[in-house]
Order: sequence, then structure tokens, then C-alpha cells
Amino acid sequence: SPELEAEIKARHIDIIDTTCPFVHRAQVTARRLAQSGFFVVVYGDADHPEVKSVLGWADGNGVATLDEKFVANFDRLPHRLGILSQTTQIPAHFTEFAKKLIDFAFTMDSELRVIDTICHDIRKRQAAALEMAGRADLMFVIGGRTSANTHRLAELCSAVTETYLIETADEIHPPWLQGRRYIGITSGASTAEQTISEVLMKLEALT
Amino acid sequence: SPELEAEIKARHIDIIDTTCPFVHRAQVTARRLAQSGFFVVVYGDADHPEVKSVLGWADGNGVATLDEKFVANFDRLPHRLGILSQTTQIPAHFTEFAKKLIDFAFTMDSELRVIDTICHDIRKRQAAALEMAGRADLMFVIGGRTSANTHRLAELCSAVTETYLIETADEIHPPWLQGRRYIGITSGASTAEQTISEVLMKLEALT
Repeated sequence: SPELEAEIKARHIDIIDTTCPFVHRAQVTARRLAQSGFFVVVYGDADHPEVKSVLGWADGNGVATLDEKFVANFDRLPHRLGILSQTTQIPAHFTEFAKKLIDFAFTMDSELRVIDTICHDIRKRQAAALEMAGRADLMFVIGGRTSANTHRLAELCSAVTETYLIETADEIHPPWLQGRRYIGITSGASTAEQTISEVLMKLEALT
Repeated sequence: SPELEAEIKARHIDIIDTTCPFVHRAQVTARRLAQSGFFVVVYGDADHPEVKSVLGWADGNGVATLDEKFVANFDRLPHRLGILSQTTQIPAHFTEFAKKLIDFAFTMDSELRVIDTICHDIRKRQAAALEMAGRADLMFVIGGRTSANTHRLAELCSAVTETYLIETADEIHPPWLQGRRYIGITSGASTAEQTISEVLMKLEALT
């Protein structure tokens, strides 16, 4: 959040900002909308850390929700409404949400801004992982157990083939690999290259 | 158009700007969008003088159409799209148009602005005229024969009761009034008060 950033700067602490550039884009978009007098609606889970952070940049002038009725039920609908998305939402779901908000919230003298803040890299990664899962008889998804996008990848792949979510190479049980001909690997958006290399080496050693 | 305005100013001709404030708002909106790098889509009949004028303020960076497919069929869809409306369009039709454009034109990194430039006075006037026509056994719509909103009023009323579009009091034929108990009067958005008074006096004299 901007408050945290300011505090860190005030204490002269050196930081390395590891915020994903797409999340940063969503944050900047929220701030730009709020500063232009728009009420910011973030399409996403209000409890998700990224969503909380993006909303923080709207300086209190916004909400996060996955349900368009939440906005429709306001006592007074804002005339200026800016709609953006958590970076990991599905594009088609976001546009449906935006269209429903037009039905609910676009009235006399309204101005509505809809801005794509979705990370299409993640969408591509999901599509590629699904395609790979379709050909594999075992999938490994490498990433944090608390990462939403890693979980989503594992969820998608497990619908297609047997899938394990692992955080490190150590978690691979050799018996899993018996009789497998094609093993697929994918990883979450923030998984370190080092971790992926270790998994690859372990698999090479075991097969 | 801005060009015409500039030429008039260059020749030091005194002008009285009689542009309707709602049309002016649409013009300014088109200019603001174009200057911010948005491709302007005006929802309206491309041949209508108002629509041509509004588009003129977009400085060549826009189109006017009533058909969302016209925009969808572009070779390259603009990423930044500003959607506004001719002031006399029906609000529900405009929002349907905007929603279809979201389907067609909202893609990766898109920013879409939808701005209400409809004159809701005209909508109220139409609703009031329709209500009156429902109670009247004769309606007069006073306004120019070349005015789109006057024609629209006459069209709406004639579906409900016998209706005459007149430009001046002189056009009233006394036989029209025989046996009428309730005569309704409405007028186009730009009809002079004087003309309306003359019609009222003529009707009082004849009934």
C-alpha cells in the first residue's frame, strides 16, 4: 500500500520492490481513477491480498467484489465509476461483470471507465498448462501452497490428468513416476527459476 | 464545427451561439476523449447534422454509427475507445450498444470510456407528450419539419392519437378541431416560445 511505502521511505530502509508489474499497473490504475474523481470497483475477491493492495491505492474511494449486485444495491450510485480487475481473473468473466454494471449503474450523466488490468501472461500460462496436461499422464505444478495462481493451475490441470502441487523438489515421491511416459511441468507466476531447475534435475535423476 | 468557429472568429463576425447545451456537452466530450488519445464512437445516424458536428470535435479520430458491427469489423481495433451518444437517442439503446462494443472491442490492455451525453430533457418531453396523447383526441406538435426531435415527437404521438406536425399557427385548419374535446400541444426542443403562444391564441380563438 502507499502508506507502507511511505513509512519504509521515511525510515530510510533500502527496499527491492518485487511487485509484479501487472499488479503495479492495477495499483496505478486505481490511483489514477480515484484521483480523477472516480469510484473504483475492483473485480476480485475482497479478501485476496492483491485486491486489498490495489484497493489501498484508491485511497478509500472504492470497493472490491465479484458480485455486481453489491454495487447495484448502493443507496446512491456514483456517477463516475471506474471498473478494473484483479490481475488473475478470467477476461470473459470481467467483461460480463462490466456489462452488468452498465445495466445497473449507468444512468443520467454517468461516466464509466472499464480498464483491462488482467495479466494475460497468466491466462497464456494457464492455456499452455492445460494443453500440456492434455498430453501428459502426470503433471507437476511448482509453486507456493498459498499462491492463488499456483492453486488455479493445479486445479485446472487436475481436471485433465493426475496432478501434484509441489513447493520443492524434495516433495517428489519416486513411486509417483512409475510407468509414466510423459510428465508435464508448469509453475506459478512467482516461482523461482532455481526451484524449477531443482525439480527438473530431480526428475532427470529419477527417470 | 471547431473549424467553422475559428473561421468566424478570424473574420471578426459577431455570433450568437444558439447550440443546445446538451449538444455542446457532447461536442466537448468528443474533443476531450480525442485529446486523451481515445478513438471516439458516436452512437447516432452518421448523416444527422448534430452527429456530424459532434464528430467534427473529435478531430477526425472517430466514427458515428448505430451498428456496433461497424466498429467490430475494423482491421485493427483501437485499444482506447470512447463511446458517447447523439443527444436524442434512447438511453436503453445506447447502453445495449455500449455492452455489445465491450463484447467486440474490449481486449488485452483495453481502456473503454462510456459517457452519457443523452439529453434527458428530450426523453422527459417524449414521455410527457405520449402521456398527453393518450388522453387527447387531437395532438399538435409544433416545430420545424427538418427537426429530428420534432419528427420523433409527432411519430410517437401519431401512434396513440390523431396528430399534426405544424411549424406555425397559420397551418391550423379549423375543420380539424370539429368535435374535439381534448386537444394536446407539445413542441420540439428548439421551438420558439413566440410560436407556441401564437398557436395557443389561434386555438383559443377557434374553439
